[in-house]
Amino acid sequence: MGRTSDARQRLLDAALALIWERSYSGTSVDAICERAGVKKGSFYHFFSSKADLAAAAIEASHERRCAFMDDCFSPSVPPLERLRRYLGAAYEEQARLCRETGRVLGCPLFTLGAEICHEDERLRQVINGILDQHLAYFENAVRDAAAAGIVEAADPAARARGLFSMLEGALTQARIRNDPAFLKHLPDEALASLGADVAAAEG
Amino acid sequence: MGRTSDARQRLLDAALALIWERSYSGTSVDAICERAGVKKGSFYHFFSSKADLAAAAIEASHERRCAFMDDCFSPSVPPLERLRRYLGAAYEEQARLCRETGRVLGCPLFTLGAEICHEDERLRQVINGILDQHLAYFENAVRDAAAAGIVEAADPAARARGLFSMLEGALTQARIRNDPAFLKHLPDEALASLGADVAAAEG
Repeated sequence: MGRTSDARQRLLDAALALIWERSYSGTSVDAICERAGVKKGSFYHFFSSKADLAAAAIEASHERRCAFMDDCFSPSVPPLERLRRYLGAAYEEQARLCRETGRVLGCPLFTLGAEICHEDERLRQVINGILDQHLAYFENAVRDAAAAGIVEAADPAARARGLFSMLEGALTQARIRNDPAFLKHLPDEALASLGADVAAAEG
Repeated sequence: MGRTSDARQRLLDAALALIWERSYSGTSVDAICERAGVKKGSFYHFFSSKADLAAAAIEASHERRCAFMDDCFSPSVPPLERLRRYLGAAYEEQARLCRETGRVLGCPLFTLGAEICHEDERLRQVINGILDQHLAYFENAVRDAAAAGIVEAADPAARARGLFSMLEGALTQARIRNDPAFLKHLPDEALASLGADVAAAEG
């Protein structure tokens, strides 16, 4: 049983890594099996198709990401500090990936979503749902900042949407430029876009 | 000669449309030739490879876009109005594409760039260079707005980068959601992120 679940996990890890580094169309079931060290017969024991595996891989990655986001966006932390932590961590993560793989990878949801959204409706819906959940963390923080009078926002949800778009747009540009430094000043740029006087509000 | 140049143009148009609607890996030379109504032998008369055609198609599309951006970002227009025009036009364009094709397509530079950036260095560089040129329009407008005292920006280039990321992130989310309405309030959201009092400054 240990061995079986290990093979499934290796397939999830290999699929996420290959699709993120390359692309969905550019990643074959054979390549995933080879990287995972799993035979093709076993692949079809666990997953009915590449799309089925990709959806499971994205969902498994999202579960790990949620624990990290819960920590960054803890209500015990001042609201703008939550945003600063998460945006700073995005830079650190991409810089680490670049050191480890030689490549800035950006956001797997965005890269995969943009590629498959008009080809695979189920995968599109999975990604859409996860993007909505990520956005909810931003809304929560901006709403708390507005309630505390730290930022002026007539429509906190709209400001959060703009902020989340800024992060995702910057991550994808960092990927295309293959340069993690593109993200280095994102926390300052994003908080400036909220018109927040961080020094005064949170010392 | 008219017919020859027409075939080349049809290949450029077909490549851009198919890659934008689907993906680069998901678009074969056969499919491009079929959509263009051009024989495969003619394809290789004009282009050495799919990557060669994709680069030419992106560059041709950029030339048309530049004329449009020159108009939107004319120095004769107040700086924030330039941004509002261009961001409003982005929504109108995606809404039109959605009516015509049933699909929100987002930004072809972003979708193609994210897919191929680690696979095709020449295409990556072409896209990178064009993204830099688009960003320069935003920098120009934000710098003029700061010089006129309409927005406070210690670092106009950084604010422009944030704004451009916001646009590109929103375009890609609109693609993944397949919903042009996601972009409808982008002009207001983007100008709010500059802390601009548009009514007072330009109303």
